[in-house]
Amino acid sequence: MPELCKQLRDFIIEKVLQNGGHFAANLGVVELSVALHYVFDTPNDKIVWDVGHQAYCHKILTGRRKIFDSNRKLGGISGFPNIFESEFDAFGTGHSSTAISAILGMATASLLNNNIEQKHIAVVGDGALTGGESYEGLNNIAVSNTNSLIIINDNDIGIDKNCGAINSHLRNINHDNNLFTNLGLKYIGIVDGHNVHELISCFKMLKDIKKPCVVHIRTTKGKGYPEAEKEQTKWHSTTKFIKIEKTYETLQKGKLRYQDIFGQTLIDIAEKNLKVCGVTPAMPTGSGMIEAMNRFPSRFFDVGIAEQHAVTFSAGLAKEGFIVFCSIYSTFLQRALDQVIHDVCIQNLPVIFCIDRAGNAADDGATHHGLYDLPMLLPLPNITIATPANAEELRKMMFYYSQYSFGPVAIRYPKGAIADEKFSYKTPVINNNLAEITQIEFGKQIAIIAVGTMLKNCYAATKILNEKKIYPSLFSICIVKPLNADKIAEIIKSHKLVITVEDGSIIGGAGSFIKSINSSLAFQSRIISLGFPDETIKHGSHSEIFELYGISPEAIANTIFQNILP
Amino acid sequence: MPELCKQLRDFIIEKVLQNGGHFAANLGVVELSVALHYVFDTPNDKIVWDVGHQAYCHKILTGRRKIFDSNRKLGGISGFPNIFESEFDAFGTGHSSTAISAILGMATASLLNNNIEQKHIAVVGDGALTGGESYEGLNNIAVSNTNSLIIINDNDIGIDKNCGAINSHLRNINHDNNLFTNLGLKYIGIVDGHNVHELISCFKMLKDIKKPCVVHIRTTKGKGYPEAEKEQTKWHSTTKFIKIEKTYETLQKGKLRYQDIFGQTLIDIAEKNLKVCGVTPAMPTGSGMIEAMNRFPSRFFDVGIAEQHAVTFSAGLAKEGFIVFCSIYSTFLQRALDQVIHDVCIQNLPVIFCIDRAGNAADDGATHHGLYDLPMLLPLPNITIATPANAEELRKMMFYYSQYSFGPVAIRYPKGAIADEKFSYKTPVINNNLAEITQIEFGKQIAIIAVGTMLKNCYAATKILNEKKIYPSLFSICIVKPLNADKIAEIIKSHKLVITVEDGSIIGGAGSFIKSINSSLAFQSRIISLGFPDETIKHGSHSEIFELYGISPEAIANTIFQNILP
Repeated sequence: MPELCKQLRDFIIEKVLQNGGHFAANLGVVELSVALHYVFDTPNDKIVWDVGHQAYCHKILTGRRKIFDSNRKLGGISGFPNIFESEFDAFGTGHSSTAISAILGMATASLLNNNIEQKHIAVVGDGALTGGESYEGLNNIAVSNTNSLIIINDNDIGIDKNCGAINSHLRNINHDNNLFTNLGLKYIGIVDGHNVHELISCFKMLKDIKKPCVVHIRTTKGKGYPEAEKEQTKWHSTTKFIKIEKTYETLQKGKLRYQDIFGQTLIDIAEKNLKVCGVTPAMPTGSGMIEAMNRFPSRFFDVGIAEQHAVTFSAGLAKEGFIVFCSIYSTFLQRALDQVIHDVCIQNLPVIFCIDRAGNAADDGATHHGLYDLPMLLPLPNITIATPANAEELRKMMFYYSQYSFGPVAIRYPKGAIADEKFSYKTPVINNNLAEITQIEFGKQIAIIAVGTMLKNCYAATKILNEKKIYPSLFSICIVKPLNADKIAEIIKSHKLVITVEDGSIIGGAGSFIKSINSSLAFQSRIISLGFPDETIKHGSHSEIFELYGISPEAIANTIFQNILP
Repeated sequence: MPELCKQLRDFIIEKVLQNGGHFAANLGVVELSVALHYVFDTPNDKIVWDVGHQAYCHKILTGRRKIFDSNRKLGGISGFPNIFESEFDAFGTGHSSTAISAILGMATASLLNNNIEQKHIAVVGDGALTGGESYEGLNNIAVSNTNSLIIINDNDIGIDKNCGAINSHLRNINHDNNLFTNLGLKYIGIVDGHNVHELISCFKMLKDIKKPCVVHIRTTKGKGYPEAEKEQTKWHSTTKFIKIEKTYETLQKGKLRYQDIFGQTLIDIAEKNLKVCGVTPAMPTGSGMIEAMNRFPSRFFDVGIAEQHAVTFSAGLAKEGFIVFCSIYSTFLQRALDQVIHDVCIQNLPVIFCIDRAGNAADDGATHHGLYDLPMLLPLPNITIATPANAEELRKMMFYYSQYSFGPVAIRYPKGAIADEKFSYKTPVINNNLAEITQIEFGKQIAIIAVGTMLKNCYAATKILNEKKIYPSLFSICIVKPLNADKIAEIIKSHKLVITVEDGSIIGGAGSFIKSINSSLAFQSRIISLGFPDETIKHGSHSEIFELYGISPEAIANTIFQNILP
């Protein structure tokens, strides 16, 4: 067993350093994965890996060793458990805190099928325990008769340092009186999560307990790779690590990520305006807020993996006169939509949502592509929605809205590096929260309306078309709501074919919003909206994904070309 | 003090029996409200009433006694705390489990303002404690230095009977070792919540504690009105009570609520198909699922106020081969959007969301109007979205989709009574999950496309127009996604003006979806979408709200008339 663990660990270190992917969390669950698969009868017994980025050992042990080089690549295996990929992936994960609820559903199904032998296992990190859904699951599983097992994989860290009362509780847990026993759950712990023999004996004993049970294990994130053990946040994923290194390297050349711009601008704003606060649900490093947290610890808050709380907490701060920058990744904001509506928009409070990872999330795939933020936010009362086209625009908008304070604002921007701009583009002035729609290229028949950062691909598309003697107009929209409707009407009136392009869902997105204005006008033009179609979006590199779904420069140019053929 | 409490209780009994509104919960907090306002210095000190339907005493004590007759009426005071109504309403509530997060935000703001004297109080029911956000809030407030007070108003009931481990825990709580102390919170309890003197002494003592603290009080829902104490669910709100009585009375005449149809159909389906399950987050009675729960206790589940868990739990059941009817009110589904996407739609599992209280929620107002379910669901992959026009269609669809099992389905229907139909309408046959768009009236220039239950108002509008010699076509859509696009194109082609009418948000709704198809066609017609506009929607009677926002029969007719004027 220890030899198998060594081989597995070496394999992961080799492959992930080579290809990128989640690193430290996977090294932390080598022994756990081996012990679970040794003792339990998968796929008959079900294992659900909460948050899913630590399932590499599980994947390698269940038939995916030979294709592991394809991890997170287009056409390859997913970086997360995926029910369509293997029967051993009992339930898809990617977001945090769903596993307890999922195994309760599956274990209840077993009960209904009179199968009490099947074991249902949730592996839940201490970070994921701060998410409210974990607690909703515990509240229900504790009173069930299911054959279920909750493994608390306690490594004292999420992506960043953990926070909150539950973390302290786990550090000083009392065997007989704790959060789990309070709810009536059987609690076993603490087990050394890197002692494979100890884990195996523990699980063997648990095979015969057919009732809900919690096993608390301690592991070290990054175990077996000293640098990762020391710098766990940096080594959370090597993709990110490589990116951070690259960023520092290229900082000199002026190349930055949107996250760097966000982080630096936040500091510049907070330095001058003492009424500015910031909130992040467990993403200080990923979002770029970490520096501001270090500089202004009393005004910047990491609340743990707790998006719902993050939004209502921000609303509470805003209600009492603060301007709150609440940074949440697009797909994680889905978890707090009700709070955005109920606590922020209906009350018209000045919370500025900085929606990171909006659009194409590349190799993270379906669970992480930020496609639905515009559809879910556009209908909400009082909200302003901004889509900066580049770094300068993001920075200007953050300054503008920090002084605006008339109500909620959302600013969306994607993951990763800001592109070089090879064209002249002047960030428009915003007046009374309405921005000019800037025209970059001037044509007659065809108009391209680029939403936010899609300006880059759209500009490149015009250059491809120019070579075919086609000269479209190109417009950039930096505020989607309130929309400059007069200018849109003018564009529609003066062009026969209008193409909208956005890094998000076609249904309900900015293009659809623009179309709905067109439809009630007395005159009309044909409008085609490009973006992500109505299907589950694959994983791959940024450019592969844009190409595959028709919003790469070539694909945009091609769509226009096809639609103007006689 | 006891005399004041008696007067207050009598006043509420008189007024709510007369005008309708939330009843039993308000009778339970009479002494608490008096004691809080006696001891604490509101509005400087802040009280947030979680879920908000128990704030009547608070409102009456803070200047709204004389206008209390206007409660829940158009232009009158809101049935929930509302920051725009009074400075004593420190934070708006309506949905459950937000109060702890809200006071942590406000109390943190006080700290930043160097004001440690201000007390921030959350009154949280034991039912609201089952919601994950409460726990996210506890996890964060416990490690804060805020001057905050959490009052657990433990009456052993939500709207229906409480469930889950936390409820048992509160019944048998250990003073020194419990959920709260384990998170490091100071715990005081159990205090008799109907002894106003005991409450006052307790709060006076707490005035000087400037740290987070939990006070556990026991109250009786419906206190002082024997019938309500005995039948707490029935007397949760008298509006509902009156409605239930009316329903039973009118059952003979064939008049039913959508909830009755849902409940009865569920029983009929579950009786024949043992693979059918049901899940409700704390709304067995309100949703109509209670009878099915009583009949098939092993297959129907109340999971408490825990929408996120409800959806992932349903996905777990569905993953293992069950067809799950998951009934959630439209605005509460906002709380589980991420789980709908991440656990159900991406995994393409057969969960049938029965979206109750979709559209106009009348006197409940802004926090409860179900306006955003279509915008948030329409972009999601794999989902089918049905909008039955009447009782028969709801029933047929539930049968159809219980056998469909190709993936997620949402069926939306409104609160309350099904209307008489004075016209002949044949529920269309659904083939391969595509439904005919039924034509009810036949005209030439103008087409009205009615979405779901708006068919009733649209039909009435055509009759008004007929009197003016205007004869529009009238179509009924019962499946919004997948949309019968060919038929829509045909309608657009054959009419100059198309009006879509829905009981939901105009932005991102069914009309917008229909428009987006039109815009890419080579030919176009003018399309006007009616529904709820981009603003916070008021409270009032069903018909007042439809009239106010332009989707009553008269208003629809008038819009059409205005738009065909030369």
